[in-house]
Amino acid sequence: VKKRATPLVSSLGEFGLIARVQRRLKGKTSVVVEGIGDDCAVYRASPGRYQIITTDALVENVHFTLSTHDAETLGRKILAVNLSDLAAMGARPRVAVIVLGLPATLPVSFLDRFYRGLDGLGRGYGVTLVGGDTVRSPKGLWVSLTLVGEVKRNRFFTRAGARPGQMLLVSGTLGDSAMGLKLLSPGKKTKKWKARPREQDFLTRRHLDPTPRMELSQALAASRIRVGAMIDISDGLAQDLGHVCAASGVGAEVELERLPISQPVEKICFRNKLQTRDWALAGGEDFELLFTTPREDVKNLRRLTARVGVPVTEIGVITANPGNIRFLQRGRPLRLNRPPLGYDHFP
Amino acid sequence: VKKRATPLVSSLGEFGLIARVQRRLKGKTSVVVEGIGDDCAVYRASPGRYQIITTDALVENVHFTLSTHDAETLGRKILAVNLSDLAAMGARPRVAVIVLGLPATLPVSFLDRFYRGLDGLGRGYGVTLVGGDTVRSPKGLWVSLTLVGEVKRNRFFTRAGARPGQMLLVSGTLGDSAMGLKLLSPGKKTKKWKARPREQDFLTRRHLDPTPRMELSQALAASRIRVGAMIDISDGLAQDLGHVCAASGVGAEVELERLPISQPVEKICFRNKLQTRDWALAGGEDFELLFTTPREDVKNLRRLTARVGVPVTEIGVITANPGNIRFLQRGRPLRLNRPPLGYDHFP
Repeated sequence: VKKRATPLVSSLGEFGLIARVQRRLKGKTSVVVEGIGDDCAVYRASPGRYQIITTDALVENVHFTLSTHDAETLGRKILAVNLSDLAAMGARPRVAVIVLGLPATLPVSFLDRFYRGLDGLGRGYGVTLVGGDTVRSPKGLWVSLTLVGEVKRNRFFTRAGARPGQMLLVSGTLGDSAMGLKLLSPGKKTKKWKARPREQDFLTRRHLDPTPRMELSQALAASRIRVGAMIDISDGLAQDLGHVCAASGVGAEVELERLPISQPVEKICFRNKLQTRDWALAGGEDFELLFTTPREDVKNLRRLTARVGVPVTEIGVITANPGNIRFLQRGRPLRLNRPPLGYDHFP
Repeated sequence: VKKRATPLVSSLGEFGLIARVQRRLKGKTSVVVEGIGDDCAVYRASPGRYQIITTDALVENVHFTLSTHDAETLGRKILAVNLSDLAAMGARPRVAVIVLGLPATLPVSFLDRFYRGLDGLGRGYGVTLVGGDTVRSPKGLWVSLTLVGEVKRNRFFTRAGARPGQMLLVSGTLGDSAMGLKLLSPGKKTKKWKARPREQDFLTRRHLDPTPRMELSQALAASRIRVGAMIDISDGLAQDLGHVCAASGVGAEVELERLPISQPVEKICFRNKLQTRDWALAGGEDFELLFTTPREDVKNLRRLTARVGVPVTEIGVITANPGNIRFLQRGRPLRLNRPPLGYDHFP
């Protein structure tokens, strides 16, 4: 066995690893009755509220590469993607548990930086990491996080609540993350793209360090604005709108000119003769919120989004034709040559 | 690409996989408000109770091999090990979420059998699978399950409640699972062991299909019997007793003659000149409950265990010497040559 300067995960042993995680998770909050270190964690549940649970995993060389995601970024991202799922339901996050699949050759310092990222983001959103499991992975790193939160009994958002005539809205801008990913791992064509450093920075940050739209979601949940359906965009607008229409038994019309595009995507597309709409419709991992609301509530919504400081754009309307999603350009339906398929991690 | 008769996981695509899981998870219970198919699952929390959460993962060729664990067994086991953690706290299970890391070459039928096993066991314990994530694994299968349950506000068990003078007790028999594992994956020495088919059957079943001691735990939680500390034995008695002593700031004396040994382990040890105590102290994955109770409560405990039908054995006593665990043979401390270290999955 070669001696190495960097301590590796395999040198800690299972209990060493557990102790290391425990030290990072000392922060007890008022929610936590028993934290990490026992067989389970115990936490308080509020009366008058429902509990809500979601889980998401990230796998090395499937969802991320260590050459583009440093440890801290990965720690933030595994929490951010789960927070985004909670945001999509109008929920407030409370506690999380994590499972890490670690290759034996991983440096121990990676773990410390990973937890620093996770903790930092968790603190900002009131999430307490209350436990987990650490296992050996025969190949590659993987991370699986379960997030538990709560919603008011009669105030949470699902994919199934869209109704004909409701406005279709989306937060932020679309396609940034997908283009950021392309810039991080350029292919033959992408290599020749002209992108300014500041554009590159903005877009790669949008991919590596997504912001869950928790504030917008919380503000909506606390407001009287009627929300029909809501979903977070993880597979691309077209695909996730498909999920909403399928679950709600409705159709939709999207006005392509209205799709919110960031300046960097706009400029890179213009310079390199790309279609912004392709990025907006098919780009994955935007983690923006797509939702519907009755037309009468749009005025109040405008006030709310101004207060929260998150831009929200009307991009279309819900129709009564189940499963029929039409993309309009200057009012006319557009046949898209390549259907925007979004992400599929089992290609 | 070669054509195969067996449909592989890679042939389904991500949404095909999700749909397949959803079909298996149609069973809504009164706990579940929104089940799988949305960004999160929503479930009711009972007033007057705390929520409790635990997570555990099993990795192919680290915790199991597919040559010894069929799909259904693995589905049962990933739930059983998490149920055992809840049992160790006196909790009632409610909902679970699961993440599956799937190699592309896995036959689709594996998933169906896996969920059949998981569903079957879950039904028996009132667990509803409410969601999950399916990701690609570059090498080997892994499964990560998070289980949420509840405990009464003032009635749950931790590792930290052991007090000097309390009796130390353990459910069932010890070492069965470890010996079952050896019989399943025999080494050079093990190959020559004389084991009868019925012994082999019993022990391998104890390893492959462990029974979480949920009934005993629930009965204790519902009783007036004072429970000091409780833990489920996953790393071997010696190690898990160490966890209890460390968390409680106490020591313990264990009478080796009292350790509960099954007839198959007894006989195989006798026939092959093995020490039963080695298996009882160091054997991992027993998933029996180790707990303490004041001497005055032992009589009531006897009545309770007779009613529940789970054997419980007094194996020693808690002492006031922090961290000092003594193993007594005929009343005298025994120096164990090889310290029984139990399991460590990062060797």
